[in-house]
Amino acid sequence: MDPDRLHAVIIEEIANRRAEVVAIDDRLASLTDRVIDFVSNGGKRIRPEFLWCGWLAAGGRPGPSDDLPDGLPDRRHDDTPVLQVAAALELIQACALIHDDVIDRSERRRGAPSTHRAVAKEHADAGLSGDSEHYGLSAAVLLGDLALAWADDLYTAGAHALDAVGRSQPVWRAMRTEVLAGQLLDLATAARTAAAPAEQAADAMRVNRFKTAAYTVERPLHLGAALAGAGATTIGALRTYGADIGVAFQLRDDLLGVYGDPAVTGKPAGDDLLEGKRTLLLATARAALRSDPDLLAELDAGIGNPRAPVQRLASIIAATGAPQQMERRIDELVASGLNALDTLEEDGRPAVAAPARARLTELAGIVTDRRR
Amino acid sequence: MDPDRLHAVIIEEIANRRAEVVAIDDRLASLTDRVIDFVSNGGKRIRPEFLWCGWLAAGGRPGPSDDLPDGLPDRRHDDTPVLQVAAALELIQACALIHDDVIDRSERRRGAPSTHRAVAKEHADAGLSGDSEHYGLSAAVLLGDLALAWADDLYTAGAHALDAVGRSQPVWRAMRTEVLAGQLLDLATAARTAAAPAEQAADAMRVNRFKTAAYTVERPLHLGAALAGAGATTIGALRTYGADIGVAFQLRDDLLGVYGDPAVTGKPAGDDLLEGKRTLLLATARAALRSDPDLLAELDAGIGNPRAPVQRLASIIAATGAPQQMERRIDELVASGLNALDTLEEDGRPAVAAPARARLTELAGIVTDRRR
Repeated sequence: MDPDRLHAVIIEEIANRRAEVVAIDDRLASLTDRVIDFVSNGGKRIRPEFLWCGWLAAGGRPGPSDDLPDGLPDRRHDDTPVLQVAAALELIQACALIHDDVIDRSERRRGAPSTHRAVAKEHADAGLSGDSEHYGLSAAVLLGDLALAWADDLYTAGAHALDAVGRSQPVWRAMRTEVLAGQLLDLATAARTAAAPAEQAADAMRVNRFKTAAYTVERPLHLGAALAGAGATTIGALRTYGADIGVAFQLRDDLLGVYGDPAVTGKPAGDDLLEGKRTLLLATARAALRSDPDLLAELDAGIGNPRAPVQRLASIIAATGAPQQMERRIDELVASGLNALDTLEEDGRPAVAAPARARLTELAGIVTDRRR
Repeated sequence: MDPDRLHAVIIEEIANRRAEVVAIDDRLASLTDRVIDFVSNGGKRIRPEFLWCGWLAAGGRPGPSDDLPDGLPDRRHDDTPVLQVAAALELIQACALIHDDVIDRSERRRGAPSTHRAVAKEHADAGLSGDSEHYGLSAAVLLGDLALAWADDLYTAGAHALDAVGRSQPVWRAMRTEVLAGQLLDLATAARTAAAPAEQAADAMRVNRFKTAAYTVERPLHLGAALAGAGATTIGALRTYGADIGVAFQLRDDLLGVYGDPAVTGKPAGDDLLEGKRTLLLATARAALRSDPDLLAELDAGIGNPRAPVQRLASIIAATGAPQQMERRIDELVASGLNALDTLEEDGRPAVAAPARARLTELAGIVTDRRR
């Protein structure tokens, strides 16, 4: 995928959406620009990359449409609508992060104040009436909604242009239901701190499966493939790869959340411990500590406590061997995910077209890389 | 519109959506049922009614599809997909109200605890860990998102079945952008209490135009008409009616929010005054009191104060003549809205088909009725 073309499509589409809001009232420009800036400046564009690979895997060809013999454009091979759907994924992500930051009470995001914090500060600085915090929260809820609505508009525009609404809408629907169900599950299971370690591990894996893997890798690939009219074997191979690499991506993220270099991750050292994130890493360490109630109690007392000694907690977890277990799990998942790309269809034809296979192999390394 | 058929479509569609969530994790059933109950039990179904009228106005016929001469179903005349889009409007409304209640910190909705309050109570009663209030708020944000995502799924399913995505999606898009922009504008202007009365009146009218009129009447009509493939004259007549009746509906709501009978409105007496709602009624009263600074100060001190003497505030407003001005404005808007229904197309054919005109005349009375 050409990142500059994606960027150009994103910029053009959100400029149109912004114009529609400003036409209603130009005083909404600065609030709307919170979404605009979020989408135009931030993010690694991982989901668009996977969408694009899914489309290539199923025979999509980059570039403008060719004409069919009857003189009509061959819309299956026009890539601008594919980039519109890719832009839609970035808008879904904007909604998810803006609302997540409200839910997690996060102060910062991508090196800047989170949306609700930035709007609260704007309110306070302007000396407006009412509670600045609640104003910021309220605006963030509505701006996330706006991003979600725009995401749907962009998906529908792209899919309709490709004559692909019928075959791709079930995937789009599943992806959004899955990520929201995953977030609800994350919320609900985090409130059950008294659960047994084995249950916590199962919960963490289920959240990883839906909140991360399905939403970040599996469904974007599936959606791209559906836009290109893929068959069941291609979709099956891509979904297996996506579920495995997606979970591996989350397990790597969990390790980085405890042992990552703040200079690389952009987050404080041990951030996941301070936030009290219920990861598989933590559940695995807690299971190993059942025979050492004192150490388990020390760990549990520190998790989610913003003033906890994170280095000490990190070394308690390390001593259980849980990080090594996670590394092995990542390796296994990457191997099984890449293996799925070798699925064959009839007559020895690969289910996943060659250019997509090469890029997906590369991406598996990138998203699970330990220095990321 | 047959309300029982609409109800049946709503029940079937949300049961399918619920099943998708519960398949991910059955512990999400009770949270998901907050949305399900909200949509299946509540509301006056005003937006579906207007959508249906728009569709009838443009030649839609109730009942199952007829076959065309070539044996294919005439999908323009199959009404089940129209009811799916109507159900989508109810889901948009669920998102709007669930998120509005978070923003307005409302305790109750439709005679029951608001979603965030109900979930907070569930959290506290179950003795779960963490802050119950914030848990309720977080779940309400995500459940509103789920309703918004499902709304889009239902709209797309209905519009696609009618082969109407191309002609109706711009309307669907505009409606969602308008209601969210209207809500943002409501939030932003409410924080500007120091604004001059004339500016407040203009702001209130703009919020009425987008947050209420476009979203409740004008765009549902327009959307229904677009589904049926309406021409520009029909759409123009419906939109004029919709904008006028929609604003009149809000002005009536504003009067009921101050002078309504709690037994009928289901809200406490003078609820809008206690909440500090910035209505056109209030802006008009404030403008009239410019010559009486003491009374204006007394009014301003009471607005938004939950312990204010509402009867006294209501009588200050009444003495300015503002309620009578609102009544006149409502009458004018209803007259001009109904007048738009008489628009003719070529050869003396009415732009709005007869069955729709009759029902729209009736609905104009119902939604602006003083006893509602």
